[in-house]
Amino acid sequence: MNVQKSKGNLVIISGPSGVGKGTICRALLAKYGDIELSISATTRKARVGERDGQEYFFYPREKFLDLVQKEAFLEWAQVFDNYYGTPCTYVQEVLAQGKDCILEIDVQGAMQVKQKRPDGVFVFLVPPSQEELIRRITCRGTENTAEIQKRMNKVAEEMTRLKEYDYVVVNDSVEEATAKIRAILVAERCRVSRWEAC
Amino acid sequence: MNVQKSKGNLVIISGPSGVGKGTICRALLAKYGDIELSISATTRKARVGERDGQEYFFYPREKFLDLVQKEAFLEWAQVFDNYYGTPCTYVQEVLAQGKDCILEIDVQGAMQVKQKRPDGVFVFLVPPSQEELIRRITCRGTENTAEIQKRMNKVAEEMTRLKEYDYVVVNDSVEEATAKIRAILVAERCRVSRWEAC
Repeated sequence: MNVQKSKGNLVIISGPSGVGKGTICRALLAKYGDIELSISATTRKARVGERDGQEYFFYPREKFLDLVQKEAFLEWAQVFDNYYGTPCTYVQEVLAQGKDCILEIDVQGAMQVKQKRPDGVFVFLVPPSQEELIRRITCRGTENTAEIQKRMNKVAEEMTRLKEYDYVVVNDSVEEATAKIRAILVAERCRVSRWEAC
Repeated sequence: MNVQKSKGNLVIISGPSGVGKGTICRALLAKYGDIELSISATTRKARVGERDGQEYFFYPREKFLDLVQKEAFLEWAQVFDNYYGTPCTYVQEVLAQGKDCILEIDVQGAMQVKQKRPDGVFVFLVPPSQEELIRRITCRGTENTAEIQKRMNKVAEEMTRLKEYDYVVVNDSVEEATAKIRAILVAERCRVSRWEAC
């Protein structure tokens, strides 16, 4: 009886590129008010229409590298000449408000987060079939055959990380996959290990 | 991608007497087709209208005690002159059909099941407050003040077992508690640890 849950959960939504992470996350945010998407930091220049603290936190290179030193990122990576990362502070603010904070992130990033926050809720999104994943990648129209083969090899490698996640959700339809992830969030809020006796 | 979940989960819905376990289980069964309630075995005589394999499996005393010897019960107890227990076979049949099998059971029984099936999904149902539990017990009209005090002491003792469960659900309304348990069942079917690579 004397139990309560005040803080939100850190939820990592991950999976192969092209599986539909972004679509699922947008659907979750549109439907539920007790969820926030984490905002990444980057050293790249803001594009027209992008505002600091909305699409990204735009950091100078020195500030970013200083925060890396201070372990102030849940995960970070260098992509060509720019750095991208998830600042701990914003995530902590969201969780303190009692909301779940969602990280939409690739498998490599998720494995970094797992090191720092093994208490996170790790969800692996998978395509209904390999054929469907190829179709989704091809539909983007930006890849040639060699590129697709390279990406499929990467997917096969990423799939071996499945066992490090808590949940696996097949993205056969946005509606069903979103409903399953919502169920996972509701269930995780009921977990005894996440409740604080008071 | 190449993952599947064929068997159902064993779900233990437990909690203090008077918390509303029966109401919640009936609501779940009425609403969802992929759930079955476990059927207990007993040595007591069938009452008028009760049929073997419906309300209970009615076993002769010798058969029941023989099955106890053979460890064929998930849990069992003696209540006055009669024995009650959960036969493993029926539960296994339900799970093999791919359905979740629900055990509605007191805390003592749940702890026995936990020994045999630590992979079960253990849900602890709690009243919204101690006052509300007293009200629910009193409303049955069958208990006097001393009896209520005795039961409240038992509840306090049972609450110390909360940490042995996976989930805690506050039964503030049948609709909300049922929705939360449904979310738990959906989430558990997505758990990586319950999927079989194929």
